[in-house]
Formats: sequence, structure tokens, C-alpha cells
Amino acid sequence: MQENYFHSETVLLGKGLPSGGPWTPASLAAAAPSLLAEQLSLPAAVLSASALQHNLLWMREFAQAYGCQLAPHGKTTMSPALFRMQLDAGAWGITLATAPQTVAAHGEGVQRVLLANQLVGKGNFELIASLQQRDPGFWFACVVDSADNVAALGRYFSARGQQIKVLLEIGLAGGRTGVRDDAQAQAVLDEIARWPDAVALVGVEVYEGVASDEAGVRAMLQRSLAQWQAIRANGGFRRLPAILSGAGSAWFDVVAEEFSVLANDADAQIVLRPGCYLSHDVGIYRQAAERIHASNPIARTMGSSLQPALRLWAYVQSRPEPGKAIIGLGKRDAAFDAGLPVPALHYRPGDAAATAAAAHWKVTAMMDQHAFLELQADDVLQVGDMLCFDISHPCLTFDKWRHLLVVDDAHRVVGAVSTQF
Amino acid sequence: MQENYFHSETVLLGKGLPSGGPWTPASLAAAAPSLLAEQLSLPAAVLSASALQHNLLWMREFAQAYGCQLAPHGKTTMSPALFRMQLDAGAWGITLATAPQTVAAHGEGVQRVLLANQLVGKGNFELIASLQQRDPGFWFACVVDSADNVAALGRYFSARGQQIKVLLEIGLAGGRTGVRDDAQAQAVLDEIARWPDAVALVGVEVYEGVASDEAGVRAMLQRSLAQWQAIRANGGFRRLPAILSGAGSAWFDVVAEEFSVLANDADAQIVLRPGCYLSHDVGIYRQAAERIHASNPIARTMGSSLQPALRLWAYVQSRPEPGKAIIGLGKRDAAFDAGLPVPALHYRPGDAAATAAAAHWKVTAMMDQHAFLELQADDVLQVGDMLCFDISHPCLTFDKWRHLLVVDDAHRVVGAVSTQF
Repeated sequence: MQENYFHSETVLLGKGLPSGGPWTPASLAAAAPSLLAEQLSLPAAVLSASALQHNLLWMREFAQAYGCQLAPHGKTTMSPALFRMQLDAGAWGITLATAPQTVAAHGEGVQRVLLANQLVGKGNFELIASLQQRDPGFWFACVVDSADNVAALGRYFSARGQQIKVLLEIGLAGGRTGVRDDAQAQAVLDEIARWPDAVALVGVEVYEGVASDEAGVRAMLQRSLAQWQAIRANGGFRRLPAILSGAGSAWFDVVAEEFSVLANDADAQIVLRPGCYLSHDVGIYRQAAERIHASNPIARTMGSSLQPALRLWAYVQSRPEPGKAIIGLGKRDAAFDAGLPVPALHYRPGDAAATAAAAHWKVTAMMDQHAFLELQADDVLQVGDMLCFDISHPCLTFDKWRHLLVVDDAHRVVGAVSTQF
Repeated sequence: MQENYFHSETVLLGKGLPSGGPWTPASLAAAAPSLLAEQLSLPAAVLSASALQHNLLWMREFAQAYGCQLAPHGKTTMSPALFRMQLDAGAWGITLATAPQTVAAHGEGVQRVLLANQLVGKGNFELIASLQQRDPGFWFACVVDSADNVAALGRYFSARGQQIKVLLEIGLAGGRTGVRDDAQAQAVLDEIARWPDAVALVGVEVYEGVASDEAGVRAMLQRSLAQWQAIRANGGFRRLPAILSGAGSAWFDVVAEEFSVLANDADAQIVLRPGCYLSHDVGIYRQAAERIHASNPIARTMGSSLQPALRLWAYVQSRPEPGKAIIGLGKRDAAFDAGLPVPALHYRPGDAAATAAAAHWKVTAMMDQHAFLELQADDVLQVGDMLCFDISHPCLTFDKWRHLLVVDDAHRVVGAVSTQF
């Protein structure tokens, strides 16, 4: 049932495919090529079907336990098949970062988008206004932290005879976007009030991931909650329930804890926006998951944690020196800004099964198309051996691939998903 | 004439386009949207038509002066329209890094590919063997540095009744791929000799960019030349002229100098493989160009140097603090591994013209979809202003875009090129 998401008829091009083709996710699933039988060109990016399913259900259960709704940040995967999987599993909507991402998601059937950024510039206004005009059933809201931006939105959407929904964004001094203090917030709210037809305030939003520690995160969340309550008290929301939204992929548990004081408030709709839970990783987000599993009472009772679902396969490309292997995997294939890929499995074509990679094998650097793997001189690795790597930072790994293969636990392809970066 | 490369009928999707569509390079050229009139969604990646043309002719003139041929490294742009532009300007072939890149280039009409990597793994063997079978006129050669790899190629291509052309790759101790010494080289040559029908040695190749300084580069090149001469003396090349190839984008002048001792040798074909000259940058490759212009006698007489042709436009997304602007441009849009984007132009919609960005505006960090720009508190930058950025490291900027707009000097779109990563 769930695998239908991975059987589209989109034509796939580029790396990580078998010879022949043109291939589609559906024809790949029918051919069921095997990674271990070398029926694909490497490097290839793979998603574990079972780990995706596990992570999907894990986050649904977690959010439900706190009375929160999910609008997973789609910029991580930009894969509409995964968006549909998330929506069918009960997500309220999809969060996105830009107007073109919104157009791509809408084109693939997404009907509710929270843009976790200001919408800036006439070209981007036009993309959204055109969508709203073509599809009156499409729900879209963006965030605002600037009176200038509200005025620009007001002028544009008013001239188009349209309304744009906005959430006030709370920020942190020294952080990224968002209002720093009450005076900035009030300037934005005052400007919104000047455009009663064109600009509708529907909630408060925060990205707590810019805070440097848990105390900072909690302070941002409490300020956001207080701002939401103040606006509600003043009758400032255009509709009730009004949205209160936070949560990147690292602190979603703390956001759920802090915001769930409103879980039984009929005026409030709490929306969490983690983006990386579906693929997870073994770097920055595994660290976050370990903290969550150790400290969050709900996560502790769930009996399992998120699983890394995104991996990369590549060949040993050269063994030029005893202590070094060059791998056919580079910055063109994997994120490298928050930890380098980590060898997980080793397979020599013809062997019965893949085995765990040696713990001392370590990627020390990457170039565009190559990785440097540090070995011990007597390690058996040879040119043509296959390695499977875990990764850190899924966002910047997804965007290196126009499609990712979906595989079963025997490393056989059961489908694929396209990306639309 | 030259602009025909930018007028294909490929459908474009994703970021950096006007509203409406679907757009193709041809329909974009017909509509000629203006960046300054905000007729496009930002961020957008642009190539200057005039700078591309300048760089194309500059490198042709440089290579001709040294009696060298060009096989520009196509992995930089992975843009077949630019490959055709390079081939029509006299390039002998296109260099690529992987088998899927080769398939993509061949599919767009490229008929001669030098793979500057070992071809490893059955899935990749099959991609190349299928191409050679379907198109006997397609010329393909890869490099080898491992007897194991030669044996694997020999077994596979011999079983297919085909021949694979190879160049011996010279490497550097502590470097990347390539044989480290004469013993390793001889082992590879011995294995090649075991496959007289299936494996044909057609040259010697080196990537000198792994050396740490000019002396190291020259030493690698001299060793490569000596190896080429020794093989020629032993009658080891399958055909004459035999190829001697080097040159990334940083040391192509030194490669031309060292290898041009063979320029009048009828047995030799010198092939340079710079990849980044067409787009150039203001970071690592501008530094290289400054060295070249200061030290190379040919470059000095040419009266001009390479010009940065690849730029990114983005909006000021937020002005949350006096000394900081958040820009709608991130790791999803620009390379960040060899210097962050550098503000070049500032434009406020409605102004008469773009002006030079202030010298003290500095990108201090990037997240996936945002850049942090350091300002002075009284700088005029406001939300909705446009900034044009120069970049460092074109390879990892091109691969963030499925197409790049080609613009004239008035920032009007005159076409586009697709990428095939």
C-alpha cells in the first residue's frame, strides 16, 4: 500500500540508475534491480522503505501524544511523493521555504502550505497570487517580521483583490529572522492592521533552532506563546483557532512540551514543523534524537527512536596507498557541512552478504567527486568493493540527487522518489 | 549566433523563473524578462552571455598558443548547451567524471569523452559498453591506476567483444588517485598487456591540482611526461599520436608550459582539461588567474584575463537588527566550501540602475536557505532590495541549479541552459 508512493511514472535521469531505460519509479520497481548484484550505477542514494515507514509513524505518534499537528518541513526532501506519504499519515500541511517550492508542491497535489519565511519580491508575490487565483481551495500562509514587508504584501495583494495569510515571526537577538522585541512586533501588527482586506493574521511562528541551548530555546518558545496569548486577548487574529507553530528537527520535543499548554484550548492550533525526521541521519539529528530519547517522557515510553533511512552507496575507486582508499563519492553526492559520510557496510561483489564497515574506516575529506577514506595498511578493501555510507544533514544530501532509490532490507530497489529542487 | 545554445525547447522547472510557464530557454528568450523589473522569482543563477563568450575565446587562444587541445572538464557545469558551445569553439572533446555524466553528454550530442577517473563497477561498465555498442562512432577513454581495475575492465569488455581505451594515471604520494611510483605504473602496464584485444592504452593522464605548490605541480608534470616518453619508447601505446593530458582549472598554464615540449612531436597529442574557465569566479579561480596573468608570458600578452560569468541574485529577506541583513540565498543555492558569496551589486526596485555593493557588506554564514550579511548600522539596505553576488567554486554552485539564466549586460534574460547532474 505505502509503496505506491514510490511507483510514479516520472522519467528518471542522471546518476544511480541501471543501464538501459529510460527508467521510471514504476519500471524500476518492476525490474527490482539489486544493489549487491551490481545492477545499478554507483554512487546511488537510497531510502530504506522500512525505516521511512517507522519514522513516519513514530513522529505521528509523538505529535498526537502532545495534541500537536504536523506540517513537516518539505524543504528537506523536496520530494512530493514523500509529502503525500506524510499527508496521508495525517500531516495537517507541508512547510516550505520558498515560493518556487510552494509551486512545485502544489503541482503535485499539496493543498496546504505554511511558508516559514517572509514572501519577498514581486516575482515571488506573483507565483503565490497566481496559485491562489487558479485554485481557491489552496491554503497558503507566510510569516512576517517586517512592517515594510507587510506593506509590500498589502499593496500587491490588495491590487490583485486577494488576501494573504500571515503569521508573526518571533526571533532572537543575534539569531536569524523574526522580531526581536515587543516594539518590532507591534510595528508589524500595526502595519497588518492597515490592510484589513489584503493581509490576515492567522498565527504566530518561531524557529527555535537558532538558539544556542535548551534554555534559550525555551525562552524563545515562551515569548512566542506569550505573544500568541497577547494577540488573542486583543482580538488580533483574523480567525480562531489561531496557529502557534515552532519546531525544526532538533528541538521538536521541547516545542511540543512548551506549546502543549494550549493543547486543550479550542482557540489554538499547535503546528510542529520538523523536516528531517523521515530520513533522519547519524550526525546532527541522531545527537538530537539521543537527547530527546533521554529526556522526553513521551519519547521514552515509545520504545524506539528515529532510524537513519538515507544512505549512499559507492565504489572503492582507487587504492593508491596502503592507508588510503579513494571512494567514488564526493561533495556532488553528500552533505559535508555537518560531518562527513560514515562507512556503515562493506560488500565485495560475489560475497554472500554485506558486512559492517570497520569502525576505524574514516572519511577524512571530500572533493567534488571523490572521498578520502583512511584505513589501516592491512585492510582488505580493494578497487571495485562497495561501501554503504550513513550521512549527516539530510537537507544537503537530498539536494544532490534528482531521485533517490527506495530499497528493501535486502538492498533491492522497490521504487524511487523524484526531487524537485 | 552564439545565443542559439541558450534557446533550447527543454522545459524548465524550479527556482529562478517568472510566474506563468511552463518555460523553456526559447520561450524565456522570447519573453526577455528583466531581473531589475522583478520579472523573475529570486534567488536566481545567471550567466553573463558576454563574459561566457570572452572566456570561451580566451581559453581557445591560450591553448592554441601552446599547441594544446582542449577537453574542458564538463563536470563543472554539466550543461550540454555549454559543452556544445565549447566543442563548436574547437574543443577536441569533453572531460567527465562519471559514467552517468558520460551518458548524459552523449545523449546531447557529445561524441568524444575523456573520463578522468577509473571506470569502476559492473553497473558503470554496462553504461559505457551500451553506449559503445549503440554508437560505434562514440570515442571514449578512461584512466587507470590499478591492475585490479584493468583486470576487471579486461574481463568485462572482453566478454562483451569490445575494447576500452585507457590512459595511465600518474599520482602523487599523499594525493588522490594515480600511480605513485614506477613499480605501480609497471604493474598497471603489465596488466594492460594481458588484454591486447579488450584494453587499449592510448595515453598518460595526470591531475596536478593535488600538488601543494608550483614546484610540486611541475614535478608531477615532469614525471608524467617522462612516463609518456618511456611508454612511447617501448612501443606501449596502441595508437599514435598518444595523449598526454593534464590540467585542472588552477594550473593549466603550467601544464601547457611543461607539456608543450611535445607540441611539435607528431606522436603526441596534448590535451588540457580545465573546467571552470567558462564561468570563472572571484574566489579560488580568480586567485589562480592572477598568478597566471602575472607569470605566464602568453597570458600576459593576451591583454585580458578570465571574467566571472556566474552570479546569483537574491532578495534582502529580513532586516532584524541594525548590523545584519538576512538574504534569501543559502547553501541550497551557492557553493560555500571555498569562500562564501560576495556582494557585487545592489538594486532597489524602481531605481534607475544597480550600483556597486558596499565593500564592507560581507556574508558571514549561510544556512540551507538563508545567508547572514554583516552591515553597518546606518546602511540603507531594506527588505525587498536585490543583491547580486559573485561566487567562489563554480562546480558546487552549478549543481544547485537545474537551469541557469543567460543574461545580457542590462540584466535581461536572453536564454537559459539546463544542467544534468
